[in-house]
Amino acid sequence: MNIEKYPSKLLENAVNEFAKLPGIGRKSALRLVLHLLRQDAGEVNAFANSLIRLRSEIKHCKVCHNISDTEICQICSNPARNNSAICVVENIRDVMSVENTHQFNGLYHVLGGIISPMDGIGPSDLEINSLVERIEKEDIIELILALSTTMEGDTTNFYIYRKLKGKDIKITTLARGVSIGDELEYTDEITLGRSLVNRVAYESSLGK
Amino acid sequence: MNIEKYPSKLLENAVNEFAKLPGIGRKSALRLVLHLLRQDAGEVNAFANSLIRLRSEIKHCKVCHNISDTEICQICSNPARNNSAICVVENIRDVMSVENTHQFNGLYHVLGGIISPMDGIGPSDLEINSLVERIEKEDIIELILALSTTMEGDTTNFYIYRKLKGKDIKITTLARGVSIGDELEYTDEITLGRSLVNRVAYESSLGK
Repeated sequence: MNIEKYPSKLLENAVNEFAKLPGIGRKSALRLVLHLLRQDAGEVNAFANSLIRLRSEIKHCKVCHNISDTEICQICSNPARNNSAICVVENIRDVMSVENTHQFNGLYHVLGGIISPMDGIGPSDLEINSLVERIEKEDIIELILALSTTMEGDTTNFYIYRKLKGKDIKITTLARGVSIGDELEYTDEITLGRSLVNRVAYESSLGK
Repeated sequence: MNIEKYPSKLLENAVNEFAKLPGIGRKSALRLVLHLLRQDAGEVNAFANSLIRLRSEIKHCKVCHNISDTEICQICSNPARNNSAICVVENIRDVMSVENTHQFNGLYHVLGGIISPMDGIGPSDLEINSLVERIEKEDIIELILALSTTMEGDTTNFYIYRKLKGKDIKITTLARGVSIGDELEYTDEITLGRSLVNRVAYESSLGK
């Protein structure tokens, strides 16, 4: 079924706007718009205003470039965090992912992407220079590179590694290995190979 | 992965609002909000305003109760349409579905639902009285009942049929049968049985 004829221009506009969002087709957009039409005007206004306020008022933390309601984000300004470790991530979502593990108590640095010549993204488009400045200014002991395990992620890791060569800092990267709960039979050979090469003492896998 | 900690209240609000929409979970909501955050402020405002305008300015046609930008909708006010036939549908989306078949050139009547005691929807919650009024006032020859083939749809059909008993009007309902493209093996027995009982002359299935 091809829904094309809308009984109202206002409806059509709203459907068009929803359909611009990633992963939402025209049929889903229509369903969402008709849902909103059944809600109170106050509900719809609250929804719309939350988006307008988000776009106009949100800030990026001046230190780590994570999004924030304030000039310096909650994480950077939290005195309980370990400010000698920085975890380098690609985007805001990755900060949330790492935070949800509750395994890291240091600071972050959001690059805003990874080096990807195919998409025209070079080092100067990312927050790499500001990372180098942070390391020169702040008292950083360890830098954890937590980027995707893709070619682009590896390229970016290597670029940052080279930029920081000679500086007195420990650079680490996330462990690669078999996911917890995975069966070996279904693990790809590169991951399995890496997890063999980087095998750890059995006792250390028990403790923490 | 459980995403709970948001780096910003504004972000959290927008995610909460998106997650209220049907079929959108918190992870999808976050993805959509981060997408909007990457767009120009003008784009986001256009999106938000299309929703505000939709909710505040849209009207329901005084005749058929379809949504409309004007007091009388495009279909009801179109002199090229056959105003002696009314197709009774449950909601706005069904009007669009029937329109997309290009097989009906009459008018519509949107009930706004179907009789469903389980959901507390009785005849008085629907636009049934206004349908009876239209039939008394306008020069209607045929009424097509195009409701769902569910128990609720059948109940509503029967209620309308009884309300109009004695009036000089032809009441029809959509043909039930095997869907085009369906294999008999996978057709349920009730549909198949009905399509046998209501079998049509082979010639009539060829022509139009």
